[in-house]
Amino acid sequence: MLLHLSTWAEIGEFLQRSRTIVVPIGSNEQHGPTGLLGTDWMCPEIIAHEAQKSADILISPTFNIGMAQHHLGFPGTISLRPSTFIAAIGDWVRSLAAHGFEKILFLNGHGGNVASIEAAFSELYAEASFARRPAGFALKLCNWWDLEGIGELAREQFPTGHGVHATPSEIAVTQWAYPDSIKSAGYSPQIAAWGPIREAQDFRARHPDGRMGSDPAQATPEKGHALVMMAAKGLVQELDAFSRESTPHGNG
Amino acid sequence: MLLHLSTWAEIGEFLQRSRTIVVPIGSNEQHGPTGLLGTDWMCPEIIAHEAQKSADILISPTFNIGMAQHHLGFPGTISLRPSTFIAAIGDWVRSLAAHGFEKILFLNGHGGNVASIEAAFSELYAEASFARRPAGFALKLCNWWDLEGIGELAREQFPTGHGVHATPSEIAVTQWAYPDSIKSAGYSPQIAAWGPIREAQDFRARHPDGRMGSDPAQATPEKGHALVMMAAKGLVQELDAFSRESTPHGNG
Amino acid sequence: MLLHLSTWAEIGEFLQRSRTIVVPIGSNEQHGPTGLLGTDWMCPEIIAHEAQKSADILISPTFNIGMAQHHLGFPGTISLRPSTFIAAIGDWVRSLAAHGFEKILFLNGHGGNVASIEAAFSELYAEASFARRPAGFALKLCNWWDLEGIGELAREQFPTGHGVHATPSEIAVTQWAYPDSIKSAGYSPQIAAWGPIREAQDFRARHPDGRMGSDPAQATPEKGHALVMMAAKGLVQELDAFSRESTPHGNG
Amino acid sequence: MLLHLSTWAEIGEFLQRSRTIVVPIGSNEQHGPTGLLGTDWMCPEIIAHEAQKSADILISPTFNIGMAQHHLGFPGTISLRPSTFIAAIGDWVRSLAAHGFEKILFLNGHGGNVASIEAAFSELYAEASFARRPAGFALKLCNWWDLEGIGELAREQFPTGHGVHATPSEIAVTQWAYPDSIKSAGYSPQIAAWGPIREAQDFRARHPDGRMGSDPAQATPEKGHALVMMAAKGLVQELDAFSRESTPHGNG
Amino acid sequence: MLLHLSTWAEIGEFLQRSRTIVVPIGSNEQHGPTGLLGTDWMCPEIIAHEAQKSADILISPTFNIGMAQHHLGFPGTISLRPSTFIAAIGDWVRSLAAHGFEKILFLNGHGGNVASIEAAFSELYAEASFARRPAGFALKLCNWWDLEGIGELAREQFPTGHGVHATPSEIAVTQWAYPDSIKSAGYSPQIAAWGPIREAQDFRARHPDGRMGSDPAQATPEKGHALVMMAAKGLVQELDAFSRESTPHGNG
Amino acid sequence: MLLHLSTWAEIGEFLQRSRTIVVPIGSNEQHGPTGLLGTDWMCPEIIAHEAQKSADILISPTFNIGMAQHHLGFPGTISLRPSTFIAAIGDWVRSLAAHGFEKILFLNGHGGNVASIEAAFSELYAEASFARRPAGFALKLCNWWDLEGIGELAREQFPTGHGVHATPSEIAVTQWAYPDSIKSAGYSPQIAAWGPIREAQDFRARHPDGRMGSDPAQATPEKGHALVMMAAKGLVQELDAFSRESTPHGNG
Repeated sequence: MLLHLSTWAEIGEFLQRSRTIVVPIGSNEQHGPTGLLGTDWMCPEIIAHEAQKSADILISPTFNIGMAQHHLGFPGTISLRPSTFIAAIGDWVRSLAAHGFEKILFLNGHGGNVASIEAAFSELYAEASFARRPAGFALKLCNWWDLEGIGELAREQFPTGHGVHATPSEIAVTQWAYPDSIKSAGYSPQIAAWGPIREAQDFRARHPDGRMGSDPAQATPEKGHALVMMAAKGLVQELDAFSRESTPHGNG
Repeated sequence: MLLHLSTWAEIGEFLQRSRTIVVPIGSNEQHGPTGLLGTDWMCPEIIAHEAQKSADILISPTFNIGMAQHHLGFPGTISLRPSTFIAAIGDWVRSLAAHGFEKILFLNGHGGNVASIEAAFSELYAEASFARRPAGFALKLCNWWDLEGIGELAREQFPTGHGVHATPSEIAVTQWAYPDSIKSAGYSPQIAAWGPIREAQDFRARHPDGRMGSDPAQATPEKGHALVMMAAKGLVQELDAFSRESTPHGNG
Repeated sequence: MLLHLSTWAEIGEFLQRSRTIVVPIGSNEQHGPTGLLGTDWMCPEIIAHEAQKSADILISPTFNIGMAQHHLGFPGTISLRPSTFIAAIGDWVRSLAAHGFEKILFLNGHGGNVASIEAAFSELYAEASFARRPAGFALKLCNWWDLEGIGELAREQFPTGHGVHATPSEIAVTQWAYPDSIKSAGYSPQIAAWGPIREAQDFRARHPDGRMGSDPAQATPEKGHALVMMAAKGLVQELDAFSRESTPHGNG
Repeated sequence: MLLHLSTWAEIGEFLQRSRTIVVPIGSNEQHGPTGLLGTDWMCPEIIAHEAQKSADILISPTFNIGMAQHHLGFPGTISLRPSTFIAAIGDWVRSLAAHGFEKILFLNGHGGNVASIEAAFSELYAEASFARRPAGFALKLCNWWDLEGIGELAREQFPTGHGVHATPSEIAVTQWAYPDSIKSAGYSPQIAAWGPIREAQDFRARHPDGRMGSDPAQATPEKGHALVMMAAKGLVQELDAFSRESTPHGNG
Repeated sequence: MLLHLSTWAEIGEFLQRSRTIVVPIGSNEQHGPTGLLGTDWMCPEIIAHEAQKSADILISPTFNIGMAQHHLGFPGTISLRPSTFIAAIGDWVRSLAAHGFEKILFLNGHGGNVASIEAAFSELYAEASFARRPAGFALKLCNWWDLEGIGELAREQFPTGHGVHATPSEIAVTQWAYPDSIKSAGYSPQIAAWGPIREAQDFRARHPDGRMGSDPAQATPEKGHALVMMAAKGLVQELDAFSRESTPHGNG
Repeated sequence: MLLHLSTWAEIGEFLQRSRTIVVPIGSNEQHGPTGLLGTDWMCPEIIAHEAQKSADILISPTFNIGMAQHHLGFPGTISLRPSTFIAAIGDWVRSLAAHGFEKILFLNGHGGNVASIEAAFSELYAEASFARRPAGFALKLCNWWDLEGIGELAREQFPTGHGVHATPSEIAVTQWAYPDSIKSAGYSPQIAAWGPIREAQDFRARHPDGRMGSDPAQATPEKGHALVMMAAKGLVQELDAFSRESTPHGNG
């Protein structure tokens, strides 16, 4: 069930049977010579939208701009600063919690988001902790590549040259979903170099075409399809476990 | 041209021929008994995506969560506070300006966003004004219903009961674009009441089903189609004029 | 009744008979070759002080610095950024609400303030909306030129060359109140040009003497007197209606 | 010369002969049974306006709301939080500095403002210090009761019962300037108690009528007149010294 | 009792017998040719740690970075901006108050901290004042040089050349506590000059070796020992009085 | 070399031979029935102070309060919110960078700090990235337990019951450094449970004595000694590599 294609009354009914929601979250940033700028927010969106076709789960609109300051040296990247990102995640969560959602799972598509999302969670929990009261909600960060089975499948599909940015797995996912937007280019070197992540100019100097450790030429729509199907299944499992988790009653 | 389906190199090439970009911006909020929660961000997205099919213009990802605090009394609404919204718009603009975009048009789908977007523009301009330097970019806010010809067409289509929230025109646009998500319900009264806009509880008390002054039953996909085609054409005109506008050289 | 010339006990007594207060709000900014820098905060102050002479209404001190970043290219302009303005309005409202004021009307003298004031209102309401509780106060923005009868009178007085900045109507009001500070200068052209509003350098290049669309030579103290009397009467009416407005009781 | 009764061109001319400006700053807060709520911002305004009658000095509009959180237990008090106050002072200074003002003297009327104003100065200086560049302006805080001769005169006028809040000296100043607003009441005890300053409820419990250590019954308009004349003279001296102070050239 | 060398259970037991805690707070900043960079946070730490040896008082970890923007022209200085400092003090206090501490004494070692610490206290109290509720805690700022007997002793030890920065008294305290880190250098002039405090470059130009009005050559470990012993005794007295102080019950 | 026991001139000399500095950073938070509240900031401090005895490296004062909101349910914990922590780290880095430090290594002692520290780094880098300029500094986060050899040694020392909070390895380190503060208590169960980390009340309910997965009874001062020596050596290696790392020159 997609929240943005529902009415408020339909969401009110959903809340009668479940208090769990999925927020696809990513980034809009360069993905090498052939990767799409939207890769990191489209991957979790693709997976989440696929998953809700066969399960009674609710998907929020996609949080499509994340923390990508290091990619700003490449045209098309749009980034929030961590402080802005934390504030925005805060308002999303406060909105959803006001409606009664108690389990909010962020399905993430960008490694560079992880620290800021976790900091945002702590910022939200801290309001309750300083006030010595329960938060009223539980937050979970789940990278799509950490869903059940995905790591193993990606290693089988791409035994070398997977890398960490502009990876063949994420590009394969977008190839399957957007077959009209498959791009091609030469890669030199075939597998890109690694390095530390700092400010945008430093990043571009270390990674002239934008890739980190990856060989995207291995991506195919078929591999993407397999990844999406497995990830969609993994997401439903993850949500099921998260929804069933109970809150302890303590002396706090 | 859709930025999120492009590579960074393609955006680099676009910047050689144009310094203008469109940001569809809206809100995710209740739209009465039959309007979709995503209406206000989907309308500008639908129009902008349509417009770029026949013109060499660039559309950024959609800014899908806006200032909708007054709708938080209805399930599914997600809102940023104005201060968060201003910060986020700021980072979007700073990102785009860093790449060399000089004309940034926000195509807006939510009346409640207008004040905060204009405040965000002033916040950005103020950095330059305090520093006594040029901003380097011009920002324009354009509500889709103010595009050339739309007001007249909507008055023809909906001579009564258009209203200001959950209007038949915006619902018609989403009906055309998402025909599988057309909802139906009874309306009582047929045309909803008006009133001041304050906090969420006050709003819900005044507007029990979420509409303001509107009768959405008049929406049809066909009317939506006509609106989209006219708006897409109007957007291209608007962008053309905005792109050609020159910056004065003064003694500031 | 002027709050700043009252004791706390007198305000305590006023609160027994009314929960409404007026905050004159404006800006300190250039007003062309002959307009006073204080024009935009003095106009609502003049009108509000006049109104309280014949009605039992309460006027707070004047909020005299607003959002005027675009005028910073002209000496004497003092501006808050929107974010600062929003924070300050927030603390004014929280202070007044703590005393039990439930209807707070901002009588505004500067068009450039409108977006930020409305954003400030939303920021305040959002605290209640996220917390699912009533705000406890209602806020109203009223530009003095929108008060009953003022638009018509100004059009009669200044059929051409009224414009939108350094207008003859606002200059007339200050001429009546500060007859020792009437300035004169030549205008070239007689009616100033219009244009978009962006950062300060751009503004000054477009509007070299600071006016927008106006011919202030038409201002006279007599015209100002007529405007003040009508506006004072309109303000009392507006307050009366606002004070009598009741809060709905809903299911929010 | 009053900035708000001047045109931008007049301020431009003033900047040709001086780079110094005075900002009257105070607070709007309870001042005991007979003191006016505006006392703390009206005193520096009265003194500064008096001073400019006989000297070529420039006075900005009055910053009339300060840090008075501890007085919020009494109706009519309006307070900024320190963080808001610091932000607002920052924007005032940045505005004035953008025009070329290099010496900005805040003539203060409220002891409770001192810490926040000094913190605001440090916040402004820190921008330059972190960037290893000159600030371009010097800021000075001057309480009106610390001007040359005032302390001695007040001790002569009020040998006992001067106290620190709702003092006879500040009330005398407002009595002289606003003779139509002189209030009377009984005081019990005649000289109020002292105590620590914490949150508003604590303050009101310790100081039920709002005074701290003072006996305002001793105030007269004549004493106020003497104070204003001496303070106006002291302000001109202070400004003269401040204006002539030169900036060192070092290896910083 | 040192909090950082205790377990949470031991602090829980302490709270059964006392609700008071000491926070040593200072700054890490240049202290002239021979003063240690840590002088201002080590002095209150040394005194507080000494005091708890003979009294049942609780000392928190030391808040070691304060507001020292003006010293940033000298290597090794680390400064928070006032806004950051206020936020951090706020979180310390909220943490301690959440455990039930009701009297929090900040033992300060840096004059430049005073304004920001007091602003931080007001920021914290304001939360309660706006909400019309008790704060639940009382905050006290105490400079170690203001403790009982210290002023007199320092005047005896250093009748001339005490000054206000890199003073012989504070350097003596660190000499006693860190005898292996006693430094020596020539001073020229023997007693340093005074001047206003502004941004870092201005400060360094006025005070080329970092001292203000002081002759640190007079410091000896023995004098430091006498100061520490007297200050430790004064701190225990101060805490005793602060702990016994009761909260008034008023009509707030 | 310890910065706080040095003069500014000594740091100026150090900067002639190195541009690298270590900031020990941790948290002050409950560490189970026997762990000291200061454990997480004392461990990196102990290791860094040990390392500088035999190498020409510079250690800043310890950043002793971190992000520990989840431990606020236990007396003695002091926590910054992530937003405050990010702001404070920002000012530390800006201070050090202003002096010319180009490599800043944060030696961390608290897992809960990692996300916020990384977010703080991105916040700092983003300033440069938005401005299209080099940052001028490189930041590195290094947990002491990730230093060369520590993981292996800890697994040898504590093959079971190491856990992730109040671990025997960190407690051993403090036992070696603070032998007078070794505490004892019974543990039930001997090895504590694991669980998700959310707000403070939730945490305390899941972990009634504060431990997560650990059996601290295995800690001894001797094991702590071995850990400190190996970590000190590892730190020097890490710094050596970090200092020698060069910045790429690119087209960014």
